[in-house]
Amino acid sequence: MARAGHRKKRNPATVHQLPFQTVENPYTPVEVLDEEQVEKIVDGALKILSEQGMRFMQAESRKILASAGARVDETEQMVLFDRDMVLEKVALAPSSFGLGARNPAHDLIVGTNKTIFSSVGGPAFCSDLENGRRAGTYDELCDYLKLVQCLNIIHQEGGGAFEAMDLPAESRHLDLYLAQLTLLDKNSQAYALGRERTIDCIEMTAIALGCDRTELRKNPAIMAVINTNSPRQLDIPMSEAVLELARSGQVSCITPFTLAGSMSPVTLAGTLAQQTAEIMAVTALAETAAPGAAVVYGSFSSNVDMQSGEPALGTPEFTKMALASCQIARRLGLPSRTSNTTTSNCVDAQSAYESEMSLWGSLMGHANLINHAAGWLEGGLTASFEKLILDAEMLQMMVKTLEPIKVNDDEIALDAIATVEPGGHHFLTEHTLARYETAFYPTMLSDRKNFEDWREKGSQDTAVRANAIWKKLLLEYEKPAIDVATEEALQQYVAKRKLEIAAQTK
Amino acid sequence: MARAGHRKKRNPATVHQLPFQTVENPYTPVEVLDEEQVEKIVDGALKILSEQGMRFMQAESRKILASAGARVDETEQMVLFDRDMVLEKVALAPSSFGLGARNPAHDLIVGTNKTIFSSVGGPAFCSDLENGRRAGTYDELCDYLKLVQCLNIIHQEGGGAFEAMDLPAESRHLDLYLAQLTLLDKNSQAYALGRERTIDCIEMTAIALGCDRTELRKNPAIMAVINTNSPRQLDIPMSEAVLELARSGQVSCITPFTLAGSMSPVTLAGTLAQQTAEIMAVTALAETAAPGAAVVYGSFSSNVDMQSGEPALGTPEFTKMALASCQIARRLGLPSRTSNTTTSNCVDAQSAYESEMSLWGSLMGHANLINHAAGWLEGGLTASFEKLILDAEMLQMMVKTLEPIKVNDDEIALDAIATVEPGGHHFLTEHTLARYETAFYPTMLSDRKNFEDWREKGSQDTAVRANAIWKKLLLEYEKPAIDVATEEALQQYVAKRKLEIAAQTK
Repeated sequence: MARAGHRKKRNPATVHQLPFQTVENPYTPVEVLDEEQVEKIVDGALKILSEQGMRFMQAESRKILASAGARVDETEQMVLFDRDMVLEKVALAPSSFGLGARNPAHDLIVGTNKTIFSSVGGPAFCSDLENGRRAGTYDELCDYLKLVQCLNIIHQEGGGAFEAMDLPAESRHLDLYLAQLTLLDKNSQAYALGRERTIDCIEMTAIALGCDRTELRKNPAIMAVINTNSPRQLDIPMSEAVLELARSGQVSCITPFTLAGSMSPVTLAGTLAQQTAEIMAVTALAETAAPGAAVVYGSFSSNVDMQSGEPALGTPEFTKMALASCQIARRLGLPSRTSNTTTSNCVDAQSAYESEMSLWGSLMGHANLINHAAGWLEGGLTASFEKLILDAEMLQMMVKTLEPIKVNDDEIALDAIATVEPGGHHFLTEHTLARYETAFYPTMLSDRKNFEDWREKGSQDTAVRANAIWKKLLLEYEKPAIDVATEEALQQYVAKRKLEIAAQTK
Repeated sequence: MARAGHRKKRNPATVHQLPFQTVENPYTPVEVLDEEQVEKIVDGALKILSEQGMRFMQAESRKILASAGARVDETEQMVLFDRDMVLEKVALAPSSFGLGARNPAHDLIVGTNKTIFSSVGGPAFCSDLENGRRAGTYDELCDYLKLVQCLNIIHQEGGGAFEAMDLPAESRHLDLYLAQLTLLDKNSQAYALGRERTIDCIEMTAIALGCDRTELRKNPAIMAVINTNSPRQLDIPMSEAVLELARSGQVSCITPFTLAGSMSPVTLAGTLAQQTAEIMAVTALAETAAPGAAVVYGSFSSNVDMQSGEPALGTPEFTKMALASCQIARRLGLPSRTSNTTTSNCVDAQSAYESEMSLWGSLMGHANLINHAAGWLEGGLTASFEKLILDAEMLQMMVKTLEPIKVNDDEIALDAIATVEPGGHHFLTEHTLARYETAFYPTMLSDRKNFEDWREKGSQDTAVRANAIWKKLLLEYEKPAIDVATEEALQQYVAKRKLEIAAQTK
């Protein structure tokens, strides 16, 4: 789409945003477990692995784990782990590492006291206020990715906001990678379903960064989510991806999908133990294949709604398990990942309070990565254009909350207080005038008009205002600089691979 | 309204609620200030009081403070305090105390690690989805109070949800007290504008509790919010209320309304110092008039929107000042009060995320009392029927988040995990079936239907569902038991006082 004509008219003041920034948490993490409880859960996880084991459906994975001393039942595809072996393997994983971006100013660190906000990844549908919920197209996906580039608060693209249903399933990932690597200069997550898709991502990322595989190994730039098939199972495409990522020096974010009462025990401690067992088992695979491989302890533990059997998200149980998961990850020396979730079907109060519950649990727990931090709706089935804006606002508010209060004579402002008479006001003091432009978080989305003004301007609720904001942002989008030869090389790679895939699938 | 006919048909399952319960916070408070910073702010507050002072418009207050050694400028009505005197007076206030209710099961403790949720108090308007925002009537106020009684998560009525505009202003408080003391058996806050209104509350509470003033002094049952006219000023009605409450053994919740950049410096540290100064000054008055008087350190610090000059609420600055205020209150040995606020004009996503910001700051800071915890909308100008339900849901979720995770063999559930094969599910295990009914928070308001079901059932958003819930609850309302003679005595008191007031105002 040729939007160049708009660029000259761009007024940066139209959408208030915070600058792109590293998010660090200066406060002590909230801990919902004491040390003994953390140990009990880790011990439970080790017992699960030594007594029940985990099924690895891929023969190669079983072979690798057997070589490290695991006991393998080939008929059942089950692998049983000694606790010492598991702990030794987990200890090989780094507690923090970098993730490169095409723009070095957008390079990330995963771990320490930093938190990365990643945009929504994986939904089947997209939605916006005008066109409702629907299967999305590649053009719409590109618009979504442009917004992810525009929104400074988002550190990382989440691996494809939704499926581009107008493209063939076999090669859709190539179009996604091309969009990620040309429309954004931020880091993007990979779509790691199987070995070939993972290799395509590695190859294309190397082209985009202008480096070879050796350099990429030294400075990883690719992370993919590896979902176990809870309880206690890893399928073949996921095994392939873990092995390919580990051997290439790239990152697996290992995330069981454990809904208490369904894929895991109805109890939170049982769910946490099972989650930990599955993560440690997959970590053992990665570390055996490539010692020192970077992994992330990914939590997506929530509960089912016991009335309906549907997933329940952004619940108190979700929040507590996010907090607990961060503690367990720290105990194991791994970076932690949580999510921003809601089951709401529209951008309403529920979508906000479930997301806030998710985000507060994540941030107070010091999660290092929050997946789906912006845009997720409808239990993850939909990426919403308006929810993307709502979440970005909530994330910006969180980041300002993590900015410490300054306390010094200038800030305590006794002189300013002395100049204002009792019952007077500080609007026009020198102290106020010197600071008011930057003193407070300048909201992007909130409406503070009085009721009469608000009604006169059309009684716009948050979703309606968010709709106007993403449209404005899309007009403001500027494609980040990219070397012409690099972009052509990426296009050529995609064209070549599409021909290969077409030949394979004939 | 005669709803007796409905009572027999009542189905308690229609609205899922948690039981009435004491809320305790088992986690370590989040601290945004280090010890040195807290000391600097308290020191700043003491400097404000010794160098600039506070204006007490009431002559009696100045006389009382002079008797305690304060320096008084009668022309300017200014009172200057020595720091030692202030600290000695503040040290006389108890760090915790009880607040009685008509139903002893609803008695409250203010302080320790407990948190009280109080319903909205003070708005000019009411609103609901059908009739919009409007001046409310006494009948509507009674409906609102019935809902406050019904909602178990609310510990305390907040002092009148909105003004009953169909009643005369001079005697409206009597009708409010009658409603509070007969429609509810929970503790209610007083409407403490001036001496007479405060005395009326004390007298009527004594009648309702069947006790005399001596007993009431021993077991306080009345708390009123005392707002300073920031900066550094206390008006006559508020002085009268503080003195009457202190001398009667009742409680002042001293709360400056300090919007950074308007009623206080544009800096957070300056706002906190001024807030602390004003609270300590009013505390010194209460403790001089009645040593040992119970007071609460009330924070309502937020910021103005520097673009519009309107209040900005539920902001990152609000959240941080709530957290900091709880720290300062603990340093001074006083219970702390915060609020649940939003500037939104409707029950939308903004109303939820600003309230969540307020509530998380309050709860993670260990606030002992959250005023306006349920029902507040539109910067406090409106009490909303739907927001009441939305907030009650959010409070319930918070309370469940504060419930510690149990970790023991039964909860880690290794046996249950062993019975479920890899890739299987836990729906029907014995372990699940024995626990599923109580394992998770049973939502009152959230919708977890899949998109198609949700659309088919009318695409109801949170506000629409909240509307249905308050109507159901109102049908379920049962007037709590009250002795006939007590109710008659209350009615007679109101009738007598109305005649007196009518005579005065002729």
